Amino acid sequence: MNKAGENWVIGLDFGTDSVRALLVDAATGEEQKSAVRVYPRWNEGRYCDSRQSRFRQHPLDYIETMEAVIREVLSGIPEETVSRIRGLSVDTTGSTPVAVDRQGIPLALHPEFAENPNAMFVLWKDHTAIAEAEEINRLASRWETDYTMYSGGSYSSEWFWAKMLHILRVDRQVAQHAYSWMEHCDWIPNLLCGHNDVLTVKRSRCAAGHKALWHEAFDGLPSEAFLTTLDPRLKDMRMRLYRQTYTSDAVVGTLSSEWAMRTGLPRNLVIGVGAIDAHMGAVGAAIRPYSLVKVVGTSTCDMLVAPVNRHLDHLVKGICGQVDGSIIPGMLGFEAGQSAFGDLYQWFARLVAYPVAALLNDHIKQEEPHVLVDRILAALNRDAEALPVSHDDEIALDWVNGRRTPDVNPLLNGWLTGITLGTDAPRLFKALVEATAFGSKAIVDRFEAEGIPVREIIATGGIAKKSPYIMQVLADVLDRPIKTVKTEQSCALGAAMYAAVAAGVYSSIEAAQQAMSSGFEREFYPRTDRADVYRVLFQRYQALGNLQEKSTSYN
Amino acid sequence: MNKAGENWVIGLDFGTDSVRALLVDAATGEEQKSAVRVYPRWNEGRYCDSRQSRFRQHPLDYIETMEAVIREVLSGIPEETVSRIRGLSVDTTGSTPVAVDRQGIPLALHPEFAENPNAMFVLWKDHTAIAEAEEINRLASRWETDYTMYSGGSYSSEWFWAKMLHILRVDRQVAQHAYSWMEHCDWIPNLLCGHNDVLTVKRSRCAAGHKALWHEAFDGLPSEAFLTTLDPRLKDMRMRLYRQTYTSDAVVGTLSSEWAMRTGLPRNLVIGVGAIDAHMGAVGAAIRPYSLVKVVGTSTCDMLVAPVNRHLDHLVKGICGQVDGSIIPGMLGFEAGQSAFGDLYQWFARLVAYPVAALLNDHIKQEEPHVLVDRILAALNRDAEALPVSHDDEIALDWVNGRRTPDVNPLLNGWLTGITLGTDAPRLFKALVEATAFGSKAIVDRFEAEGIPVREIIATGGIAKKSPYIMQVLADVLDRPIKTVKTEQSCALGAAMYAAVAAGVYSSIEAAQQAMSSGFEREFYPRTDRADVYRVLFQRYQALGNLQEKSTSYN
Repeated sequence: MNKAGENWVIGLDFGTDSVRALLVDAATGEEQKSAVRVYPRWNEGRYCDSRQSRFRQHPLDYIETMEAVIREVLSGIPEETVSRIRGLSVDTTGSTPVAVDRQGIPLALHPEFAENPNAMFVLWKDHTAIAEAEEINRLASRWETDYTMYSGGSYSSEWFWAKMLHILRVDRQVAQHAYSWMEHCDWIPNLLCGHNDVLTVKRSRCAAGHKALWHEAFDGLPSEAFLTTLDPRLKDMRMRLYRQTYTSDAVVGTLSSEWAMRTGLPRNLVIGVGAIDAHMGAVGAAIRPYSLVKVVGTSTCDMLVAPVNRHLDHLVKGICGQVDGSIIPGMLGFEAGQSAFGDLYQWFARLVAYPVAALLNDHIKQEEPHVLVDRILAALNRDAEALPVSHDDEIALDWVNGRRTPDVNPLLNGWLTGITLGTDAPRLFKALVEATAFGSKAIVDRFEAEGIPVREIIATGGIAKKSPYIMQVLADVLDRPIKTVKTEQSCALGAAMYAAVAAGVYSSIEAAQQAMSSGFEREFYPRTDRADVYRVLFQRYQALGNLQEKSTSYN
Repeated sequence: MNKAGENWVIGLDFGTDSVRALLVDAATGEEQKSAVRVYPRWNEGRYCDSRQSRFRQHPLDYIETMEAVIREVLSGIPEETVSRIRGLSVDTTGSTPVAVDRQGIPLALHPEFAENPNAMFVLWKDHTAIAEAEEINRLASRWETDYTMYSGGSYSSEWFWAKMLHILRVDRQVAQHAYSWMEHCDWIPNLLCGHNDVLTVKRSRCAAGHKALWHEAFDGLPSEAFLTTLDPRLKDMRMRLYRQTYTSDAVVGTLSSEWAMRTGLPRNLVIGVGAIDAHMGAVGAAIRPYSLVKVVGTSTCDMLVAPVNRHLDHLVKGICGQVDGSIIPGMLGFEAGQSAFGDLYQWFARLVAYPVAALLNDHIKQEEPHVLVDRILAALNRDAEALPVSHDDEIALDWVNGRRTPDVNPLLNGWLTGITLGTDAPRLFKALVEATAFGSKAIVDRFEAEGIPVREIIATGGIAKKSPYIMQVLADVLDRPIKTVKTEQSCALGAAMYAAVAAGVYSSIEAAQQAMSSGFEREFYPRTDRADVYRVLFQRYQALGNLQEKSTSYN
């Protein structure tokens, strides 16, 4: 039996814009302290081009901020507590791969590649590999084994192989020096342990299964024949990647002396196998069989677990992926998601922030852009919440960053329709909020249509905490109650739970969840009158979406 | 032969937001002085509800501002010049009808109706009568005579009968007291002449022909049988309206002593028959056979004249109307138009002005709203002009106020599509500008497809003067040169030309045009590279428009 204060763990959560470290009491889940740092180069917009949907992150952004957040989290913590930190686990965005050398060092850390975006991490939302994803889908559809069968039947341009292939093709220099490739969530633990052989790296089951077409049934990654047919440049790549993968209860190693010095953490600290943020977030948000956990941030990840033995050969169409053990060992982890959620609101707030940047007085221009955007979002939430709903309201399509699920299609785009001279900013914002809720409903409907019951909906992530209006619309549109979790950092808490398991404090992640969960903060109940109107508006949303799909060819 | 300084005329132009008076030397067209007044009640948003597309104007707005602008225009003008003012003609928006009593007094001027929007002028862009327009179209399509044949085959909710019928149905009080109805452009001249018998009012051919289904071939207005079938409330209405109509070279009468006193104008002044603003504007902009004059303001009116004898039975499908003598006596006047042009840009500027109103500092809030909108528009014009164009740019549909031509459909609405996370305010503004240009191209294409050649394009109105960027896009999209006229007030100048004809200074409007036209200021030439891209984008605009039309049922 665990006693409070005896065992401590750290969850390290690399999000899209920043990294967070969370120090947690392994006995109770009590969050002792956390620290956040924004990636400095990313924050300046470097290496990115949003018009081309090119989003790259420099490894130094991760290294510098990781060191800083760990130091900050430890500062002022009694030495005795620090010495009792038993484990650290990591979650990151994904698929966010990078080309590495033989030692597993990202190419951008070599001086000759320091400013080359193709030698950096290709962020999850980068869409430069649309053509390559289409190519993978075309080949998969005529191959004897359908390698996309566990990925909802369609490979996404947001994933590992498409991104790797794209960069190998467009950048001869990088292609020549890329010995292998690593996901962000694999690179960090190995960096912390001081490993320097890319061939022996322990790879995350979560990232491999969802993003790299890894499956036991395929004997690992897709066959060399498949990869070579796709592109001869991929010859040998399978060998230099991996056959084996590990769930996050496994241990990568212990903290290297270099990183013990850089961070102030104890040397004997256990480093667990990493995973993708939303999967850790689902764990931190108390996922259990047939709950759908929506991790609602810039995008959403919608996670669901179901016992492997009950759904052994159950393939769910149009959902991102289903991987044995990706969320909880012994459970099939289903991942779905919406490629823009908070991003869509941010986009609109930036759109209407235009005059402020373009022409207003200097002292307002000097306000930090994100502060201004937050203030605009608060006003939009307030004004949209006051609006009635009716059958002929404006309808939006939420696909400004393509559609992830159901039925991935990166070529779809955002629409705003039903605009009249009376349409103002709060009304369009309301339409966008409703569109994201409709997108959520399409996912829930698909799970149930494919025979996976959704018994409970849990929301976590920044928007779940900050926007009761948006959560209420979601409850109204889904016509189901939605629980929001108490912790503000489900992902980091989930990573901390896994750290506790890796360090041997608990024998299973379910036991860690039981002890360490934060519980729920609030429950949103659907309002019948709104739900009735939204049933009609959802039909309009679907009809409009069909119009766009028919006029956009993909696959 | 006319000598400069001997004969003066006034053009009085009632626009959507304000009235303008222009004092002109009838010999040269030289604009001596002008004055403008914004309608005060309208400016406060009274009697309107843009969400319902209900737009009403109080007759006192017209009376008070008319008196003020005439007084202002005369102030400081030598008495000798004032005494040589020979004529005054009027143009107004239309169809902008009002319910009047037996004396021709708008009901809202009676105390019991002073605050009743249904007793006021129903502004051209009011769309409350959509159902009634549909009803008129249904009845017309099965009637022995197709009364819409000279209105492009479809009756609009923006027009006389639909608006009258709507108000007779929704307001029993008004229905009971409405002896007859008058268009704004008929009411003002009769008011100025002091006429007080609505049965003998001289009605404008221009307004009657375009908006009230008046045609020589029908022996005037639609038959009593047709009107009574439409609604029994319309029984007797035909008799209380008119059989005869007059072109604007005709005289209504001379200025009443009351209005001579109120304005300071000479009593013997001739008042000409009024017309709708865009028709007078086309005259002021030097229209001649087969030139298309685009009067580009909040909406556009696209005017074309062609000799009656060459197109006697030529019906142009999907165009608002074609009326013998509506623009120039002896010519068929074709009217087409776009129901939102500048309105669309204003809408977008107001949309992005949201944060300024919602949250910025007081001293900025206090800026007059229209000044802020103008500054935003200037910035958007500048930033959009700097953008490249490419085949996969965002595409908008410009129908935020329905579509006027080709093929009227008030149920269509505005769309914004192709939105990605990289879409910002200048890019959406560019898409809106292009959409209005595509709407213009659809009109030009329709004229030519229906056998009416378009030999020259002339632009006038606020946007033609103020927005070289928008004019250049229009030239690029149309792939034709566009001339903009020198005068800033084509409508008032056209009215002044007609005043000179009515007063006998000239024997024909063509002679008045010859002497009084302002000439052209600038010519915009299409850029080949842009025109090539726009050909592709226009196809996408049309395909998108077809999608919306298929999903919106009308007629």
